[in-house]
Amino acid sequence: MSEHFPGLSQVKYEGPESTNPLAYRYYDENRVVLGKTMKEHLRFAACYWHNFCWNGFDIFGAPTFDRNWHQGDLMTQAKAKADAAFEFFTKLGIPYYCFHDVDVAPEGNSIAEYLRNFAEMEEVLARKQDETGVKLLWGTANLFSNKRYMGGAATNPDPEVFAWGATQVRTALEATHRLGGENYVLWGGREGYETLLNTDLKREREQYARFLQMVVEHKHKIGFDGTILIEPKPQEPTKHQYDYDTATVYGFLKQYGLENEVRVNIEANHATLAGHSFHHEIATAFSLGLFGSIDANRGDPQLGWDTDQFPNSVEEMTLIMFEILKGGGFASGGFNFDTKIRRQSIDPVDLAHGHIGGMDTIACALLKAAELIEQGDLVANVEKRYGGWSGDLGQGILSGKYDLASLADYATKAELDPKPVTGAQERLENYVNRVIF
Amino acid sequence: MSEHFPGLSQVKYEGPESTNPLAYRYYDENRVVLGKTMKEHLRFAACYWHNFCWNGFDIFGAPTFDRNWHQGDLMTQAKAKADAAFEFFTKLGIPYYCFHDVDVAPEGNSIAEYLRNFAEMEEVLARKQDETGVKLLWGTANLFSNKRYMGGAATNPDPEVFAWGATQVRTALEATHRLGGENYVLWGGREGYETLLNTDLKREREQYARFLQMVVEHKHKIGFDGTILIEPKPQEPTKHQYDYDTATVYGFLKQYGLENEVRVNIEANHATLAGHSFHHEIATAFSLGLFGSIDANRGDPQLGWDTDQFPNSVEEMTLIMFEILKGGGFASGGFNFDTKIRRQSIDPVDLAHGHIGGMDTIACALLKAAELIEQGDLVANVEKRYGGWSGDLGQGILSGKYDLASLADYATKAELDPKPVTGAQERLENYVNRVIF
Amino acid sequence: MSEHFPGLSQVKYEGPESTNPLAYRYYDENRVVLGKTMKEHLRFAACYWHNFCWNGFDIFGAPTFDRNWHQGDLMTQAKAKADAAFEFFTKLGIPYYCFHDVDVAPEGNSIAEYLRNFAEMEEVLARKQDETGVKLLWGTANLFSNKRYMGGAATNPDPEVFAWGATQVRTALEATHRLGGENYVLWGGREGYETLLNTDLKREREQYARFLQMVVEHKHKIGFDGTILIEPKPQEPTKHQYDYDTATVYGFLKQYGLENEVRVNIEANHATLAGHSFHHEIATAFSLGLFGSIDANRGDPQLGWDTDQFPNSVEEMTLIMFEILKGGGFASGGFNFDTKIRRQSIDPVDLAHGHIGGMDTIACALLKAAELIEQGDLVANVEKRYGGWSGDLGQGILSGKYDLASLADYATKAELDPKPVTGAQERLENYVNRVIF
Amino acid sequence: MSEHFPGLSQVKYEGPESTNPLAYRYYDENRVVLGKTMKEHLRFAACYWHNFCWNGFDIFGAPTFDRNWHQGDLMTQAKAKADAAFEFFTKLGIPYYCFHDVDVAPEGNSIAEYLRNFAEMEEVLARKQDETGVKLLWGTANLFSNKRYMGGAATNPDPEVFAWGATQVRTALEATHRLGGENYVLWGGREGYETLLNTDLKREREQYARFLQMVVEHKHKIGFDGTILIEPKPQEPTKHQYDYDTATVYGFLKQYGLENEVRVNIEANHATLAGHSFHHEIATAFSLGLFGSIDANRGDPQLGWDTDQFPNSVEEMTLIMFEILKGGGFASGGFNFDTKIRRQSIDPVDLAHGHIGGMDTIACALLKAAELIEQGDLVANVEKRYGGWSGDLGQGILSGKYDLASLADYATKAELDPKPVTGAQERLENYVNRVIF
Repeated sequence: MSEHFPGLSQVKYEGPESTNPLAYRYYDENRVVLGKTMKEHLRFAACYWHNFCWNGFDIFGAPTFDRNWHQGDLMTQAKAKADAAFEFFTKLGIPYYCFHDVDVAPEGNSIAEYLRNFAEMEEVLARKQDETGVKLLWGTANLFSNKRYMGGAATNPDPEVFAWGATQVRTALEATHRLGGENYVLWGGREGYETLLNTDLKREREQYARFLQMVVEHKHKIGFDGTILIEPKPQEPTKHQYDYDTATVYGFLKQYGLENEVRVNIEANHATLAGHSFHHEIATAFSLGLFGSIDANRGDPQLGWDTDQFPNSVEEMTLIMFEILKGGGFASGGFNFDTKIRRQSIDPVDLAHGHIGGMDTIACALLKAAELIEQGDLVANVEKRYGGWSGDLGQGILSGKYDLASLADYATKAELDPKPVTGAQERLENYVNRVIF
Repeated sequence: MSEHFPGLSQVKYEGPESTNPLAYRYYDENRVVLGKTMKEHLRFAACYWHNFCWNGFDIFGAPTFDRNWHQGDLMTQAKAKADAAFEFFTKLGIPYYCFHDVDVAPEGNSIAEYLRNFAEMEEVLARKQDETGVKLLWGTANLFSNKRYMGGAATNPDPEVFAWGATQVRTALEATHRLGGENYVLWGGREGYETLLNTDLKREREQYARFLQMVVEHKHKIGFDGTILIEPKPQEPTKHQYDYDTATVYGFLKQYGLENEVRVNIEANHATLAGHSFHHEIATAFSLGLFGSIDANRGDPQLGWDTDQFPNSVEEMTLIMFEILKGGGFASGGFNFDTKIRRQSIDPVDLAHGHIGGMDTIACALLKAAELIEQGDLVANVEKRYGGWSGDLGQGILSGKYDLASLADYATKAELDPKPVTGAQERLENYVNRVIF
Repeated sequence: MSEHFPGLSQVKYEGPESTNPLAYRYYDENRVVLGKTMKEHLRFAACYWHNFCWNGFDIFGAPTFDRNWHQGDLMTQAKAKADAAFEFFTKLGIPYYCFHDVDVAPEGNSIAEYLRNFAEMEEVLARKQDETGVKLLWGTANLFSNKRYMGGAATNPDPEVFAWGATQVRTALEATHRLGGENYVLWGGREGYETLLNTDLKREREQYARFLQMVVEHKHKIGFDGTILIEPKPQEPTKHQYDYDTATVYGFLKQYGLENEVRVNIEANHATLAGHSFHHEIATAFSLGLFGSIDANRGDPQLGWDTDQFPNSVEEMTLIMFEILKGGGFASGGFNFDTKIRRQSIDPVDLAHGHIGGMDTIACALLKAAELIEQGDLVANVEKRYGGWSGDLGQGILSGKYDLASLADYATKAELDPKPVTGAQERLENYVNRVIF
Repeated sequence: MSEHFPGLSQVKYEGPESTNPLAYRYYDENRVVLGKTMKEHLRFAACYWHNFCWNGFDIFGAPTFDRNWHQGDLMTQAKAKADAAFEFFTKLGIPYYCFHDVDVAPEGNSIAEYLRNFAEMEEVLARKQDETGVKLLWGTANLFSNKRYMGGAATNPDPEVFAWGATQVRTALEATHRLGGENYVLWGGREGYETLLNTDLKREREQYARFLQMVVEHKHKIGFDGTILIEPKPQEPTKHQYDYDTATVYGFLKQYGLENEVRVNIEANHATLAGHSFHHEIATAFSLGLFGSIDANRGDPQLGWDTDQFPNSVEEMTLIMFEILKGGGFASGGFNFDTKIRRQSIDPVDLAHGHIGGMDTIACALLKAAELIEQGDLVANVEKRYGGWSGDLGQGILSGKYDLASLADYATKAELDPKPVTGAQERLENYVNRVIF
């Protein structure tokens, strides 16, 4: 087996002063922060699709990458991709990876062929995992690229398409289980609509809920104790996707009684496409008990589509890490780089630059966030700000002692005239910067 | 009592050929469409705030309107506003109106003064309603303008602010009940955050839920049989508002068991600020059983704030009316014009132009939508598209006959290879245009 | 030669009452409106790329269309595409078409092969034009899809890429001339940047200007009397495209003295991506003397990328037609449908539905706009609004009689206290609707 | 004269390790960086309007600030504001300030009163400047708040409004000259339109150009050697503002031969509202020779209006400073904080927190940017990337040696087959981060 990244040596931690672009300056996997190693905190994963399947095409342009693992027939390519992928994971010291079923095996022209190809490649993956120690953060099934899914998978007007999708999910879920995957992700890329003129929203939601219930039941049946994750996205490729954002997913889960079975895999770029900050989506997920895992990337603030760039803002990621640390850290989730290098970044080593930058950004942010946690000021400030709610009035309201009328009577009699207090946003923002810089 | 709109006569229906800009060309209140009069279908309301309180200021500019009802001390103004408002409602033949507590009475400098002023003005409104036959579509309390609410009302860090807010809502809700109002609206304009650095999302949601529960309980206690409505908006004035959109409100209601007690008042411009089409929000509300009422306006597609312009697209409103007719029409809700004339439209008669245009747009859209309903093709097309779900496979999936494994086994054995069918979006869009033009 | 659209007969004008979805209800090519036939006013064109080259793929999904003209080797496909295209143009009675060089001929693996393939296909096109009477509205060269253009064509860091681009443009321009094309379009899809970190803006603009000058000189040298058109777009595929919008293109042309040589081809969806209304871009182009031609499509107001949907809003297109009629109509330009059917619209006949809907929308809008012109009220209202500028003061200001000091002195002495007049936006919007509905 | 900021002492530089929130950690005015002091590089200014005029109101809410300088009659307030302002500038060590005419003096009810009030306050400002050493970065006239400007100033349909505006600009420009101001700014807040239905774009542009020419002529006439600056903004308060962005302003200046007389004052939040990065606008201004000054603030990426927050991203500002250093630094311009504290930041000391954070952010960014300049890699990389343009082919193209035909002939004969090179975006982004962190 030939090397796919001959110019790339093992990437090591060399410290902040290193000027080696192919070394880590902050990500020191064994460094202990707040009682856990960086590796345990961050649980980095690289993805199969953008790194090893994508060839650099975009909607206006042809492939640009010419990877040496994209040669030969499809099964040959699949095996070369696996070689390249695990060489890459290993050289970068990335502990986890993620895949779609059709990333790792050719989808074939029939269910039988799909199953056969996938089974063969599952064995390859199992062997690779054994050889390298790289683990599976999550698996998923691609229910959006094949023509059959053009009108959705679970929400398709044709139940045969639902059944095809069920076949893929069963296959990918069981493989994820056997490969020791720690989560299973559902991204409903076409579970949405292009036009309401041909769509029955209510019916499609019910189909979608039935699908999700089946998946949850099957998980338990096969004894998979990983987490089922939904990945919200507001649109693209569809005009509207049902899993719009975390709050919307929450309502859906709650409607069908699945809120204790499923969590969210939050992608930064999906958050911003939905009109939210990444920080908002993370904080919302924690507040609703839905936080699961992260697709770590970033969008371009001026562009209205998923650019899936590598995270490179320590400023932004510090607040994300702060929320995660406050919330107790990842359980089964991790930071998966659902990221692609730019189409003009045609050297294979650019894949390394992307991941190294992303990992160092997040590792550096972890250090800053740990300092925010250790200093405790932000948390204390919030506690203090709501202090009044621990008093008689606040507790009386929350406990149900007051109803609307008695509370209004109280306010009237007490001639309440509350005195506003500064929100101190600028002071708090400066404080965070003081920790970062 | 002097006339406030001396240049404006009673506005009448004159038919499509009329060139009188101060006549209705489509809104013929007694015309029967699909078994109900236009008046019954559309239940138009005008609002107090934009029409009779706003003076034309914006964030960069001073007042432009110089209304004759904005003279004298505040109680004098309040009475003049009431005169002007009911003169306007009557001259336009608008059957309903809506108000915030502080639109109709000066808020004063204490709870006592607030209550006194409001009580005095409630009598004026009651008398005006009697004299004119104009009815109250909904009342609401303004919990966002006063400085005390700068950090939210129910979600304020200070429970005294919550209590002040409770006092206003109790007052406005009871007045709405006494005045025969058919709904009561809550718009949480500052129930959100400016920065997560000083905010406890979970706690604020709980406060907010407690507030809403109090309102619902009080409604029942006083025997108000109108509908409690939440008005979603994603942001503005806050960076993030908790009632982001209909799907988010659904999740919130469901979390706190209020989904059968509260419905939504959907505003077109709020829908578009949330990244949705107005059509989407209406269809979503129906699909979730939350449809309540509409704040009929429009935004500017190029602007990122609430412009509250009058609806003037028959094309857009036809699809809205189609959803409403399909869904059975308004129960207690209606079309409230939460709309303002442009700041440069300084003639009082511009208020009439705005409303006439909005009413005619919607009335015309009602006629087009009724034709869509009568022809039945759109509904039939959707039914047919999902036809497969009535078959054995579809029913087997939905009924639970299949689980994931047995469904996958079935698909594999049957060698399913579903054949995609055109979504026909262009044909359907042309069909709708054929009905409109 | 077999038929490619066997289910599609000649599409005819049948009048507004027709319910035949494959007939024109408004587009009656011989109907005379304001002294010209509809055909002369609208100068409709269909495009090669979306209709006959695209296979339904998107960034998340595989092809969906399975066209019968996408079979065999590339030259076979090229000829089948030409057959299909001219069959389609003819059956729909669309008088013009548009192409990129690589739409009509395979680009090959070298310049020589490119030139050979294109020359062969140019003959095919010439013959097809002769046989059908269909004419070429404009030609263009694709300088964005091939990998060599990933970093731009004229603005590429490598002058060899510039030279390749020059070769294609010369080829396409000369062919356009020989085929009787009435315009030549440049869309600089990758003339922009992905990151400023590797970009020299000033240098790239100079390269781009040199390229444009070469094209203009060559046009004159070969005696092409069509119009050179730049098509503005703000971004996508690049992060930033230099031809951002009409105003930006104007500055660029003015800087290099090309403002009398080049005009703009305005695309609706590009206008909205740039944060403008389509109406704005058309009006701006007329005000700057740059109006050339139109790529008639629409975007989706909720989506941040080019959806290239068919225009279906008579309301919007009426204002566009009004500007065009006011401005004297098209000279060499026309309405080219740079539009694609939805990826789920997989029937070939959906191509017909899309174009018929677009043509009828614009034809209907032409009738409405003609009425606006004939009634004259809008134009007269604007004239009247600025009436003061015809008086002494206005003329004194514009003529240079006053300088800043003397004008201020005049204002002070005259104690000017101008009286604002209503902008009457609502009244004017209602007026427009009165003409449409 | 009493102290307006009694709790605020002189703010001093204390170094990066300081935890004093009211000290500078990076802004050390005398520290020399690349041969100039920080004070000389950054030329910080504070603004009058947001800090000393705004009372915390927003479009949905009443004032929140209760400043002690907002008491008494308007001239009393004006003097108290001046006291407060210069106390603040001095305590923070901010070397410059900026004002609108009506910020510093009551506008009165007539031209005469306006002139009288302003003259009186000009004397106050002159004295304050003398006493404190604080200098005027720029003055401007507010031609957008008064009702008379609701339809624009120079572009108003009424020439009397133009004349009023001329009076204000003459007054403010001459005062700026006398007060030693280094620039004069024009922000055309209402020079735009609300609806094209009542607007003559071409005429309004001509009026606007005439206005600008008058200003330029007057500047020369009175011997003002500061710079005239236009501040671009795309919209808000208008639907469309003519000075949309830097590229648009360039075209306008070029059309009227003013490109050597006027430069741009770029505001970060205006850049992002126009769909650009702040970095883009700065780089564009340098590439067009228009760079003048900066309104340093930031918007909220999720909000569609001007939030005018304090800059707090060292990451973003490092690239801005890099462009400025590369371009040779400010000539007459500087960093003016056109920024407002949040409406909930009701303590006067929050004004200090805002400015300190902004100044430290930019000072820290200056250090990082200086390192980028000193290391030279970014600049060298760009030079190298375009290296081919220094060769025969590149020079032959740019010099005009080749025309389109001869270049195409060359390419064909040479069988050019250019080899793409990686754009290396990820590597470059990592490099920048390596300098920052």
